[in-house]
Amino acid sequence: MKESPGVVDLLGVLAYAELSAYARMTEDATTLAPSLADRAALCELAVTEYAHFRLLRDRLAELGAAPDEAMSPFVAAVDAWHAQTKPADWLQALVKTYVGDGIAHDFYREASRHLDPSIADLVDEVLVDEGRSQFAVERVRAGVEAHPAAGARLALWARRLVGEALSQAQQVASARPELALLLVEADGGQADISRLFAKLTEEHGKRMAAMGL
Amino acid sequence: MKESPGVVDLLGVLAYAELSAYARMTEDATTLAPSLADRAALCELAVTEYAHFRLLRDRLAELGAAPDEAMSPFVAAVDAWHAQTKPADWLQALVKTYVGDGIAHDFYREASRHLDPSIADLVDEVLVDEGRSQFAVERVRAGVEAHPAAGARLALWARRLVGEALSQAQQVASARPELALLLVEADGGQADISRLFAKLTEEHGKRMAAMGL
Repeated sequence: MKESPGVVDLLGVLAYAELSAYARMTEDATTLAPSLADRAALCELAVTEYAHFRLLRDRLAELGAAPDEAMSPFVAAVDAWHAQTKPADWLQALVKTYVGDGIAHDFYREASRHLDPSIADLVDEVLVDEGRSQFAVERVRAGVEAHPAAGARLALWARRLVGEALSQAQQVASARPELALLLVEADGGQADISRLFAKLTEEHGKRMAAMGL
Repeated sequence: MKESPGVVDLLGVLAYAELSAYARMTEDATTLAPSLADRAALCELAVTEYAHFRLLRDRLAELGAAPDEAMSPFVAAVDAWHAQTKPADWLQALVKTYVGDGIAHDFYREASRHLDPSIADLVDEVLVDEGRSQFAVERVRAGVEAHPAAGARLALWARRLVGEALSQAQQVASARPELALLLVEADGGQADISRLFAKLTEEHGKRMAAMGL
């Protein structure tokens, strides 16, 4: 089967995003969780991200692509996002988990709408884990109810998370036009990137509401 | 079934050791691995440690113990070991993985010799993963062959790893006599701790030889 030219790019960026999310969530859990049970709950999510990384890497190998080479064009953008969004406390870490996971799921869903059947089953496998970050929502809601002043601060934090993500995504899209075309081609090309970003922003708004922010 | 009084302690210390090993190996992989493939190889081991943590935590819960409470007496000792043995480079990280994993396996094996049948199956499940850190041995051997001067430095490093581990273990053993008795009781009590430690040192020597150190 012939894949669209951006498929290796798509799998590469998602693979590196999952590998990094795993490491950052593990670090946040270890340094910020207020109890061992909370630490384990966030590590559980981190390990799920690692399982997604494994699926994506194996699929790259099946397509005859070197996983390292497929990921490397995206290392700088993903690392930059994490460097600019290092949580300062446990609630920030939970908001980052839920928001970051949500953005990733939006991309998977967008990909499954437009994409190559060759990776549709993989996307389905990843989306099975949808809702695993729900525990983060409940903790954040409870945290904000207990300390209403924290709500405004966390709302700003969430806005920064999504803003930095869209800014990195925009840079990636202009550096990798084939990847960008893959996500929007069914709707008519480059101009529709802004529609895609508007959609992500809308979904983000729903997530904010879910957290009570 | 009635468990020996130290069983909850044993499961608690192993659970926290696995949870920490997972986090530290993930951090070392992310910050020190020379390539994305190496990073993924060490993360793969880290995720296996997490799976062991999950088994131990679930077993604690089945025994009616609160996992957090069972782990908390050992947090300081395990964290101290990691703080004193932070690898400075990739080869140190690999040596730490192999040596640390080896010491843990010696404890599991010692436990399976003396222990309560109630946890024997769990120990077997963990020991199935024996040999997963073999890739570390091969990388270290190759690294030492390429740079013989690194060998002496890594040998000192490995001695420090095991020395710090035994020193923490000794403190844990005197703070938790029931745990210590559990590991040695079949051989006649407290005095045999030194025999156990001698055994661990002997196994450590074999691992050093395997790495060419």
